[in-house]
Amino acid sequence: MKIEIIAVGNEVVSGYVVNSNASYIATSLRNIGMMTKYHSAICDEKDIIQDALRLALQRSDVILFTGGLGPTPDDLTKEAVCDLLNKPLEVNQKCLEELRDYFGKLGKLMPENNIKQVAFPKDSIILANPNGTAPGLIIEVDDKTVILLPGPPKELIPMVENHVIPYLKKQMAEHYITRDIKLFGISESLVAEKIACWLKEFEWGNVATYVGNYEIAVRITTHHEVMSEAIKKAEAVQETIAACLDEYVIGYNEDKLEEKIRDLLLEKAYTVATVESCTGGLLAASFVGCSGISNCFNEGMITYSNAAKVKHVNVSKTTLEAYGAVSEQTALEMAEGIKQIAGSTIGIGVTGIAGPGGGTPEKPVGLVYIGIAYLDKSYVYKLNLNGSRQVIREKTVKNVLYRFYQLLKQNTLDM
Amino acid sequence: MKIEIIAVGNEVVSGYVVNSNASYIATSLRNIGMMTKYHSAICDEKDIIQDALRLALQRSDVILFTGGLGPTPDDLTKEAVCDLLNKPLEVNQKCLEELRDYFGKLGKLMPENNIKQVAFPKDSIILANPNGTAPGLIIEVDDKTVILLPGPPKELIPMVENHVIPYLKKQMAEHYITRDIKLFGISESLVAEKIACWLKEFEWGNVATYVGNYEIAVRITTHHEVMSEAIKKAEAVQETIAACLDEYVIGYNEDKLEEKIRDLLLEKAYTVATVESCTGGLLAASFVGCSGISNCFNEGMITYSNAAKVKHVNVSKTTLEAYGAVSEQTALEMAEGIKQIAGSTIGIGVTGIAGPGGGTPEKPVGLVYIGIAYLDKSYVYKLNLNGSRQVIREKTVKNVLYRFYQLLKQNTLDM
Repeated sequence: MKIEIIAVGNEVVSGYVVNSNASYIATSLRNIGMMTKYHSAICDEKDIIQDALRLALQRSDVILFTGGLGPTPDDLTKEAVCDLLNKPLEVNQKCLEELRDYFGKLGKLMPENNIKQVAFPKDSIILANPNGTAPGLIIEVDDKTVILLPGPPKELIPMVENHVIPYLKKQMAEHYITRDIKLFGISESLVAEKIACWLKEFEWGNVATYVGNYEIAVRITTHHEVMSEAIKKAEAVQETIAACLDEYVIGYNEDKLEEKIRDLLLEKAYTVATVESCTGGLLAASFVGCSGISNCFNEGMITYSNAAKVKHVNVSKTTLEAYGAVSEQTALEMAEGIKQIAGSTIGIGVTGIAGPGGGTPEKPVGLVYIGIAYLDKSYVYKLNLNGSRQVIREKTVKNVLYRFYQLLKQNTLDM
Repeated sequence: MKIEIIAVGNEVVSGYVVNSNASYIATSLRNIGMMTKYHSAICDEKDIIQDALRLALQRSDVILFTGGLGPTPDDLTKEAVCDLLNKPLEVNQKCLEELRDYFGKLGKLMPENNIKQVAFPKDSIILANPNGTAPGLIIEVDDKTVILLPGPPKELIPMVENHVIPYLKKQMAEHYITRDIKLFGISESLVAEKIACWLKEFEWGNVATYVGNYEIAVRITTHHEVMSEAIKKAEAVQETIAACLDEYVIGYNEDKLEEKIRDLLLEKAYTVATVESCTGGLLAASFVGCSGISNCFNEGMITYSNAAKVKHVNVSKTTLEAYGAVSEQTALEMAEGIKQIAGSTIGIGVTGIAGPGGGTPEKPVGLVYIGIAYLDKSYVYKLNLNGSRQVIREKTVKNVLYRFYQLLKQNTLDM
C-alpha cells in the first residue's frame, strides 16, 4: 500500500514552518508497518491542491492531506478535494452544535467563519477534533483513501493516534519493519566501508546509513506478509551488524541517549548535578526532559559569568586568572565544585565559546571543555566544534551525553 | 520564477528526519524575494528521482535537490539526474586531489567509495564543500536550472549561502516580499475576524494568518518588478494591520521574543536571574541562546527537588509543606530567592507539573506557576497547559517570555 502525505499551506512552502507533521505521520505509519513513499508541500491554491491530488491518485493508495481546514478564506483543502472528487459539502448539524459548545465553553460566540469547518460530504467519515475547531475527514473513493487532517500538530497528532492509525491498521497487506543502530564518533563513509557487504537490496529488504541529529544511524528495513517474520529478520540483521560496530553504538531504534543514561544512573543508584556556561541550561534540560529523572538529577547551575562560577561552584579566582574561563582547569573545578555542593555522586561542568563573538586565535569559537567529576576520579575532554551558536551548544550537549554514557558503561564493565 | 525543492532520502520520506532543509532553503530564497512553489520528499530510487525531475521540469524553473550525494551505493541523486538530462559524469581530477587532501588532514586514507562524489558533467558549475565530501552542482538546461546539494545541514547551509544565493540573485524578474506580525494570547479565528477585510488576494499581493511555534503570525506578501516598491507596500500594510492588533503584538518579521527582552534589559540596565523546576534549564537556555546576553543574564539555578529549592533559593519548608512545590507561593519565593542570591534586578521562578506522571485532580499535569520578582514588586501567573512533557515545558518558556516582555514594555510606558 503506497502512502503519500501532502501538506497544504503557504507557510510550509515558503519556509516559515518546518513540515514536522510529515515526519510525524510517516513515523506513526512506519510503526504499524506502513511505509510512506512521497511527501509534498504545496500552496493554498485550489488548482494546485487539485493537481497534487490528481497526481497522488495515480501513484498512491492512501493520501493524507494536512492543513487548510481552518476557518479563514485561505483554508481551501476540503473545498478543493471534495470538488475534484465530486463530493458536495453539507453542514453537519450535530458537528455545528458541538462547535458552538466548544466556543461556549471558552465564553465566546462562534464566529460565522467557523461554519464551513463543519461541512462534509454525506458519505465521509468525520474525525472528531477535541483540540480545535477543524474536524478531520476520511473519504473512500474506489480503491483509494483520502484523509484530511488539520495542520496544527496539537490537533493533528491526537487525531492520527486515535482515528487514522486504527482505521489504516484494518487495511494492511505486506508488512514493512525497520530497526536502527545508532552510532556516535564515526563518519558515515567509514560506517559504509565497515558494513559495505550489507548496503544493498536483498530479497528480504535493505540496509542503509543516515546522518541525523549529530548521530549516524544504520537502518535495516525488511518486508514480509507475516509481521512477526519481518521483525525476526530485521532483528537478526541488526544484531549481526551491531557486533561489527560495537564501540560506536549508542543505542537502538527509538533509544534516547539521555534515557539510557537515566536508566544506568538508576541501576547504579548514582546522582548527577550539572553546572553550565555556554550551554546555559540545555544540558540540565536534556536530563529533565526524561520523566522519572528526579531519582538521579535534582539540581544544576548556570554560571555564565566568572563571578557566578566563583560564587556558586567555588572555581578559584587564581584558576580563572591563570587559565581563563574556557580551560581544562576551569571545567574540572566546575565539575568538582557542583559535585560537592549538590552532594551528588557525579558532577559535570561545561565551559566554552559558542560564538558568534568572543573567539581568539588561541581560543576560537567552538572550543569547549567538559569536566566530569565521577566518583573519586575526574575526567576532562576538549572539543573543537563548528556551526552557529545554537549548533555548537547542541553539539556540546550531545558530546557530554556521549562521554558520560561511555564512562557509565565502562564503569559497568569494570565492576 | 517558480522554485521547487526535492529532498531525496528514505530517511526523510519514512519520517526519521524532519525535512528542515526545505524550510531553510525556502526561507533563504524568500529573503532575496524568491518564493518557493513546491516541496517534495522522495525515496532513494533512480526511477522515482527521475519521475520527480520530469514533473519539476514541467512546472518549475529552478529545481533544488537535497541529499543523495553521499559516498554509499544508496546515494543516487546525481546519477539519476545526470542520466535523465543526458549529461555524462566524469571524474574531476582537481576535486579528486582536494578530496584526498580532505581525508589526509583527518589522518585517513580516502575510501574508494568517495571517488564517485567528484564526478560531474563537463559543463556544470561545481560548488565547493569545505564541510564534507560531497560537492554541490548547478546544471543549466535550456531555460531551467537544476541544483544538487548535499543533505546534511552543516554542509548544505554554507553552500546555499555562499554559492546558491549569489548565483540565483543574478536571475530575478519579479520580486516577492513578505512581512510578518507576530501575536500571542489570541486565537487564529479571532485574528481572522478582526482583520477579515484583509484576508484575500489583492492586485499587490495577499494577507494570511498562520499558527506556529505557539504564536500566531499575520503574513503580508507583496510582489512588484521593483523590489523597493514591493517592500514599501508590504510595510505600509503591516503597519496598518498591526495597529488593529496592538495589544497582542510580540514582534515583527524575524524578531525573537528573547532578543527583544535582551534589548529592553540592556536599554534599562536591568539584570535577570532564573530558577527553574519543570523547565529544567530551558528558560535559562533561551536567554543564553542570545549572543551578548552576558550584560543582563549571568546566572540561573535548576532546583528540581524540594531540597534544592530550600538550599539554593531559600524557599521555606513551611511554604512547601503548606502549599506544595507547585503553588503560587513557591513560585513567588523562588523568584524572590534567586533575585536576592544573584543580586539581580529581576528574578524569575518557574514550577509546574510537566507530566506524564505526577498529576492529581487538584494539581493536574500542565499546571504551572510563574513568579516574577520585578524591582520592588512581585507577580505570579497560573497556567493550565496541555501536550506532552516537552510541549508543556516549551509552552511554559514561551509564556514566561511573553509575561516578562509585557512587564518590561509596561514599565517602559510607565516611565
